[in-house]
Amino acid sequence: MVDVDSLSRKAKRASRELAHSTTEEKNAVLQNIAKKLRENKQEILEANQQDINLAKESGLSEAIIDRLSLQGDRLERIVEDLETVIHLDDPIGQVIDTKTLDNQLEVSKVRTPLGVIGVIYESRPNVTIDIAGLAIKSGNAAVIRGGKETMNSNRALVNVVKQALEDCHFPADCFMFIDDPRRECVHELLQCYESVDMIIPRGGANLHQYCREHSKIPVITGGIGICHIFVDESADLERAIEVIHNAKTQRPSVCNALDTLLVHRTIGETFIPQIVENLGKDGVTFKGDNAAVVISKDGAIQPAGEGDWDTEWLSLVLGIKVVDGFDEAVEHIANHSSGHSDCILTESQDNAENFLKLVDSAAVYVNASTRFTDGSQLGLGAEIAISTQKLHARGPMALAELSTYKWIIRGKYQVR
Amino acid sequence: MVDVDSLSRKAKRASRELAHSTTEEKNAVLQNIAKKLRENKQEILEANQQDINLAKESGLSEAIIDRLSLQGDRLERIVEDLETVIHLDDPIGQVIDTKTLDNQLEVSKVRTPLGVIGVIYESRPNVTIDIAGLAIKSGNAAVIRGGKETMNSNRALVNVVKQALEDCHFPADCFMFIDDPRRECVHELLQCYESVDMIIPRGGANLHQYCREHSKIPVITGGIGICHIFVDESADLERAIEVIHNAKTQRPSVCNALDTLLVHRTIGETFIPQIVENLGKDGVTFKGDNAAVVISKDGAIQPAGEGDWDTEWLSLVLGIKVVDGFDEAVEHIANHSSGHSDCILTESQDNAENFLKLVDSAAVYVNASTRFTDGSQLGLGAEIAISTQKLHARGPMALAELSTYKWIIRGKYQVR
Repeated sequence: MVDVDSLSRKAKRASRELAHSTTEEKNAVLQNIAKKLRENKQEILEANQQDINLAKESGLSEAIIDRLSLQGDRLERIVEDLETVIHLDDPIGQVIDTKTLDNQLEVSKVRTPLGVIGVIYESRPNVTIDIAGLAIKSGNAAVIRGGKETMNSNRALVNVVKQALEDCHFPADCFMFIDDPRRECVHELLQCYESVDMIIPRGGANLHQYCREHSKIPVITGGIGICHIFVDESADLERAIEVIHNAKTQRPSVCNALDTLLVHRTIGETFIPQIVENLGKDGVTFKGDNAAVVISKDGAIQPAGEGDWDTEWLSLVLGIKVVDGFDEAVEHIANHSSGHSDCILTESQDNAENFLKLVDSAAVYVNASTRFTDGSQLGLGAEIAISTQKLHARGPMALAELSTYKWIIRGKYQVR
Repeated sequence: MVDVDSLSRKAKRASRELAHSTTEEKNAVLQNIAKKLRENKQEILEANQQDINLAKESGLSEAIIDRLSLQGDRLERIVEDLETVIHLDDPIGQVIDTKTLDNQLEVSKVRTPLGVIGVIYESRPNVTIDIAGLAIKSGNAAVIRGGKETMNSNRALVNVVKQALEDCHFPADCFMFIDDPRRECVHELLQCYESVDMIIPRGGANLHQYCREHSKIPVITGGIGICHIFVDESADLERAIEVIHNAKTQRPSVCNALDTLLVHRTIGETFIPQIVENLGKDGVTFKGDNAAVVISKDGAIQPAGEGDWDTEWLSLVLGIKVVDGFDEAVEHIANHSSGHSDCILTESQDNAENFLKLVDSAAVYVNASTRFTDGSQLGLGAEIAISTQKLHARGPMALAELSTYKWIIRGKYQVR
């Protein structure tokens, strides 16, 4: 039985060593992790095979087994992602702002690590190494709680990280693994506000809600994407189909995939049948409002229930709603979007700029697939989470979003 | 009985009007509030007098009655502070970052309002107008819950704000007052995560803890300052006394006032008696560790209890501890500081820079009074709170800290 509070306090203490290290020292740890992951490949894959066997015995779904697998070239790809992080700029120590006040006080704001990051995630063991790379590179310790179906894989991966830290003269406590399958451990972690500075849940809506309701530590909620594309009457309809096809089908199980298509009434009659034909042949099924159902005629669009507009499909289902125009589209998005990624397809400059102004989501698009809401795609080089809350960070989060700042004030014995 | 949830939802809806307004439109509201506060002075002061009378009848302390008073020139000073906010730069719409990706997507991050700010505060009715000014200027709606001993004053002030909003064609619901003395209202507000984006508690440690434990909305905790000054052996002792005197006595009841003085052992014998003499004659009393008590000889320094190093004095009490040197000072601060404001007085460039690096507080000082940790003093022009947490904002918060950002992506039908 792991004592989560005492483990988190040890991480806090150890975090001070990382916080004051140089970029070179932190990169050396990451290099060392990469090297050891390759050297210990056999051992890691054996541990992972144990998890796979246990998952099969427990009758877990193929989808879950696929997610927890490190077999084939997956481990090598994880190492490559880690090597990418080595080449990213280190945000720590950056001077955000600097000024000299009238009284000659020299004031600056300097980026510093948060301290300890707590991450609660589910079946993907690649997250373990993602977190290690991003946390260590940004000078933070981490306390991680992975899914119980990946305990053996995580144990093997965490050992590599801890050894790499020690080889580079950092405390192994900088990377703490809650090696205990009890569900209570999550609740215990959420109480450790004296030692953990930020909680990142990575999982479904229930996990995010549980963290929001029970955490005494600031939580980054996000990852839930009820994403919209509004096809305005002026859109280039041929290219619109390509964007919609991409947003819905390229990877339907992820948060930035399209959920609801809003179609301007003027073009509904011609455009909706094209969408149904084009996406339908790749396995997409449709739920529509009355107008869309009527347009489809052949029953290809099933009537949507009220809750369907608030559903993240995570699969090849697409909601289609006919709207009277721009205002109704924006109003529907205000009422049903999860604030993740929403898009307008239009050739009207006015509508484009008004959409960007009026839609209050983490990522707002004109004429592009919602699938670009991703740290790597948007140029951050990596991603630890996608925030749909407004505090601290919004949208894709990488190294800079794992930092805070402090005010540094240099004086000559000034008083107030 | 106020329905806090429905009131917050109304604020959310109304907030969209403010979010998309121009700087000129928002400044017009602030101008209008200032004008109406002056015009309705008589009425506001009468309402305030009712609160004062009720407070006297209830036997509330002189300190509380002083805090809730708007009499004399206080209302005029509140109006002047509001006029200062009119002249501050509007952070909304600022482009934080912009780039064109290899695939020609144009990506930018643009500052936007948070939406709705919930503020829970105690007896000072000036906070009501501070919040109105900063929230409206940053395009945010607000839901406020003031202390029950200021209900009449707040009702009068809120009426002015609501009238000013309506005169400028904004919904009065942009500024919502929980006009209900029930304590449950605070708890109800903390549950409204769908409509309120940020909670700012302004009050004592208990209020902050209550919010951290019960809020489903991100909370800015702060305002609690256990502040340290470490007097290094190389400090200019004559000027050090001026700084310490200022930090302790200029306004002892506030969070950035000095709580604990750490003195290098080498200079303790000569310096501590000077401190006791200099601050003692202005009414400061002292609690010291063994070494300090022994040095003081005449009993001017009382022995400190263990909890005293974790106490925010908010009065003319000063803790004094003798430390063996730099490392012990930094370690004491790591263990006992609330992460608000900590200072080193030294002529050693190395110790100064190491202190700035190693001490992890919102404001870290070399050779200046801790009393400068304040939005106005540090050049923000105003202040809504001082954060001692690390997420979102750290230290003094003003307009920019009441904003978030969104990612804006302009494309030409790109797909992934």
